Amino acid sequence: MNPARKPAVILLSGGLDSATVLACAKRDGFDPYCLSFSYGQRHSVELEASKRVAQAGGALKHHIAHIDLAAFGGSSLVGDGEVPKDRDEATMSSKIPSTYVPARNTIFLSFALGWAEVLGAQDIYLGVNAVDYSGYPDCRPEYLEAFRALADLATRAGVEGGQKLSIHAPLELLSKADIIRLGLGLGVDYGLTHSCYDPDPTGKPCLACDSCKLRQAGFATVGTKDPQLERFRL
Amino acid sequence: MNPARKPAVILLSGGLDSATVLACAKRDGFDPYCLSFSYGQRHSVELEASKRVAQAGGALKHHIAHIDLAAFGGSSLVGDGEVPKDRDEATMSSKIPSTYVPARNTIFLSFALGWAEVLGAQDIYLGVNAVDYSGYPDCRPEYLEAFRALADLATRAGVEGGQKLSIHAPLELLSKADIIRLGLGLGVDYGLTHSCYDPDPTGKPCLACDSCKLRQAGFATVGTKDPQLERFRL
Repeated sequence: MNPARKPAVILLSGGLDSATVLACAKRDGFDPYCLSFSYGQRHSVELEASKRVAQAGGALKHHIAHIDLAAFGGSSLVGDGEVPKDRDEATMSSKIPSTYVPARNTIFLSFALGWAEVLGAQDIYLGVNAVDYSGYPDCRPEYLEAFRALADLATRAGVEGGQKLSIHAPLELLSKADIIRLGLGLGVDYGLTHSCYDPDPTGKPCLACDSCKLRQAGFATVGTKDPQLERFRL
Repeated sequence: MNPARKPAVILLSGGLDSATVLACAKRDGFDPYCLSFSYGQRHSVELEASKRVAQAGGALKHHIAHIDLAAFGGSSLVGDGEVPKDRDEATMSSKIPSTYVPARNTIFLSFALGWAEVLGAQDIYLGVNAVDYSGYPDCRPEYLEAFRALADLATRAGVEGGQKLSIHAPLELLSKADIIRLGLGLGVDYGLTHSCYDPDPTGKPCLACDSCKLRQAGFATVGTKDPQLERFRL
């Protein structure tokens, strides 16, 4: 760890958003400690992407925490039911889809909070987004504000004084196209990332789930080819 | 599940407090779904206790979630450093001890929140206590209130309306002696429970850590023998 830089914990899924967030943390002068989760997700190919992204993004450490969310069920992302396809963007924002994993962001942030406390980090970065948010309750700004309030009370710093935790969500109010522009400006190689809720066994994106459609629309708006598609010759 | 009864998720460690909480949930008319964690704790004998307590307490299901908190380190409960011994109660409440596991209750509550949402449960029970709380920040009433606020925003119910989650901490303001009286009145068999941060390999309590000392003092105040001690002929 460079003593001139402070550590920050970055929640890294391996997707487009969190790769951009990692670049933001570096831009902001932090030493990134990346945290990913193996939680029984259908699309475990994203963990391979997270390793590529962490390495390319200069993570000082990349920890993959194994947690068994699938044991509870309740989400098509962990094998219960079908991933919805070919929804338009209005439908995506109007209803919570079956890909919603109950309490997922709360669990992820809790682990980040624990690691941050052990590292002495006062900063957590995550890629939630309130615009193209696919209708998940735990991506809304008011949710994030409540977690910030909780974090202030949950830690040693909360009891013993000292600097409190900051939770950074630099993509919170950006469209997918804005996120891509931001990342390209920071040198993110989106060819390393993976975004699809239902890829085939080789990792090839389905191009029909919410995640694929939001990504395609974002690159189309920016007017740039998606290097993930080129990788799969799509 | 009895259709006349509603499900509730109970965080169950296998200790004295959570065994009492399970009895409270049954008293309150809930069908208990017990959730325990294997998190690399020194005292994994408590997981065996949690199985005994869940069975005796009539749990409809007992899930032990495996999570790797030890990977982060930072606590004597997961193998980093020594468990403090022979502290008096004033010292216990004045300083956060090395047995504090960063963000543990936040992580546990997050999992409970996820399971509750999948079960359709609107109630979570946990045994935190603000009196004999061993100085942990995430046992304080203001922490719990912040988690309640977070839970209201983190779930489907928070977005789609409907009944919100309640987080029950029936021991919050009780002394250890009051907890024991409450549990004895509800028929809890404390001989099934386990309370010690640093037991020997057979599960025999050390009688010197905070957890042992609080338990011993509680039974002494009530004027009853601790059946856990009788089990180990102590």
